[in-house]
Amino acid sequence: MDAMGGDRAPGEVVRGAVWAAEELGIEPVLVGQKERIEEVLGTLGRRPRLEIMDAREVIGMDEAAMAIRRKRDSSMVRSLQLLRDGYGAAAVSAGSTGGLVAGGLLIVGRIRGIRRPVLASVLPSLKGSSLLLDMGAHTEARPEDLLQSAVMGARYAEFALGIRAPRVALVNNGTEADKGSELTKAAHSLLAASSLNFIGNIEGRDIHSGTADVLVTDGFTGNVILKHTEGLASAIFAILREELNQGLGSKLGALLLKPAFRRIKRRMDYAEYGGAPLIGINGALIKCHGSSNALAIMNGIRVARDFARGEVVRRLTDYFSEEDDHEQPEQNH
Amino acid sequence: MDAMGGDRAPGEVVRGAVWAAEELGIEPVLVGQKERIEEVLGTLGRRPRLEIMDAREVIGMDEAAMAIRRKRDSSMVRSLQLLRDGYGAAAVSAGSTGGLVAGGLLIVGRIRGIRRPVLASVLPSLKGSSLLLDMGAHTEARPEDLLQSAVMGARYAEFALGIRAPRVALVNNGTEADKGSELTKAAHSLLAASSLNFIGNIEGRDIHSGTADVLVTDGFTGNVILKHTEGLASAIFAILREELNQGLGSKLGALLLKPAFRRIKRRMDYAEYGGAPLIGINGALIKCHGSSNALAIMNGIRVARDFARGEVVRRLTDYFSEEDDHEQPEQNH
Repeated sequence: MDAMGGDRAPGEVVRGAVWAAEELGIEPVLVGQKERIEEVLGTLGRRPRLEIMDAREVIGMDEAAMAIRRKRDSSMVRSLQLLRDGYGAAAVSAGSTGGLVAGGLLIVGRIRGIRRPVLASVLPSLKGSSLLLDMGAHTEARPEDLLQSAVMGARYAEFALGIRAPRVALVNNGTEADKGSELTKAAHSLLAASSLNFIGNIEGRDIHSGTADVLVTDGFTGNVILKHTEGLASAIFAILREELNQGLGSKLGALLLKPAFRRIKRRMDYAEYGGAPLIGINGALIKCHGSSNALAIMNGIRVARDFARGEVVRRLTDYFSEEDDHEQPEQNH
Repeated sequence: MDAMGGDRAPGEVVRGAVWAAEELGIEPVLVGQKERIEEVLGTLGRRPRLEIMDAREVIGMDEAAMAIRRKRDSSMVRSLQLLRDGYGAAAVSAGSTGGLVAGGLLIVGRIRGIRRPVLASVLPSLKGSSLLLDMGAHTEARPEDLLQSAVMGARYAEFALGIRAPRVALVNNGTEADKGSELTKAAHSLLAASSLNFIGNIEGRDIHSGTADVLVTDGFTGNVILKHTEGLASAIFAILREELNQGLGSKLGALLLKPAFRRIKRRMDYAEYGGAPLIGINGALIKCHGSSNALAIMNGIRVARDFARGEVVRRLTDYFSEEDDHEQPEQNH
């Protein structure tokens, strides 16, 4: 646990980790400035089994990704080294996305055969949730990258989320196979020829309909979709509030509806989903939202536990090494 | 008025045109199968000043764009010819988007200096609405196309929508100028150097915040955003309904809230916005949603009236011919 990463670290992060220890029965390793971590623990009046690893430096939220090269004694770098060395089953950080993606690549390293790790995000849907990837680790993509993303997303959905034969869809500006950009048309062919449970193209209007378990797209579009979901949901809630403040009947109605609204917000709330897995590196790494509170951190740790427990990294390693075996002979013909 | 275009033509289209004639004081020219138009008019029991132009063929919603070449006597082709010839001040169709974009280009023709016409769409925002373009006329774009889109959107916003010095933003996966895809980084430079009121990059989360009047993006991303808005809004309303059906207090609350919900739905409803202008051709052309009802058609005609009244086409013609004048001497140096 990168105890110093995020806007509300170390307070909320340490609180979330303690909560996770109690709730999930895991034993957190808190990496960061020892005295500040101890200070937060002191205020809690309880202390489950946990470990503290001192790391003196902190990588700020606005620092360039390459700060991970300079700040060798930062909580983020030390956490990633522990993950690489197998000291922890998974790593969790609410620190800067750029730093974490770069650190995942440079410190933990890629799974052999995977060109680029991707960040996946859980989106709420009418039937629960779907996995969207790439949500922004890489702005540009080639058709082969989208195929690899699909394989990573499908393995993750199957083994970390427990979805059998997950349905994979490609985000596009039309459902027909011959519609789309050069990128999506080529990716569609690759996906259709793969062994995945590919259900075809999906349009923007079906992203939240629960039609697909895994939504594949490039990092630019994924980032726009993810932030658009956030922005549109809060715009609708703001309009709702505005409308409800008109008229006495509405005000009374609003009062009666409070519990329902709380449940809806919860279903839309990123804090409930906890974190975004970085898939494709040699370890289970979870990126939590920069403004994570203790609940989000606790849920991030839950996601990390499922990521590790599902042995997604080993399964992807097996998959891509078998692919290597298949491809080698053909190339030698 | 293409009286035969759309899923609910000619019934809803003719009803919408009659409504517009009464409400807006315009005189519609209904293009399509005369006897079917007369049949609808007969059921209305009233007949404002209008004209009927017989056209025997109909272009179906699923026909390829190039049907406009084959079906010379279709309501869509005839409507576009009337627009080209200046017989009407503007044209409105709820027929297939592909056909209309192709027809706009081939029959009405481009404004000189504009490489590609774009479809713009009105998106609801916290402060009213914003104009998003391109919403899908072209899947791929070059940086220069985004600059032209911005100019077209800004002129349209100023003269058809009456927004002074409209704020133009570029949809991107980060607000910083050096963030984004190759396309958006290059487009950002062009926009920053232009005379537009360019306020910089905008992320997905601010698309509905009312920060910008004109949102510029490529047709792939624009299409995903537009359909995502539709899909997410209906998902949220579905969850709302589900949650409101739980518990007696909620049910009573829901009853009291009905008027507020109706107002919200109205604010989110495409029928209220009417239609998407195709900007960049030699005429004011509005594409209505394929499933438009009479209200959507009426509002589409209102949008077409504002498009024509604002003389957007003349202003764009002036702008791009001046640009020609400016650029020529430099090239001759």
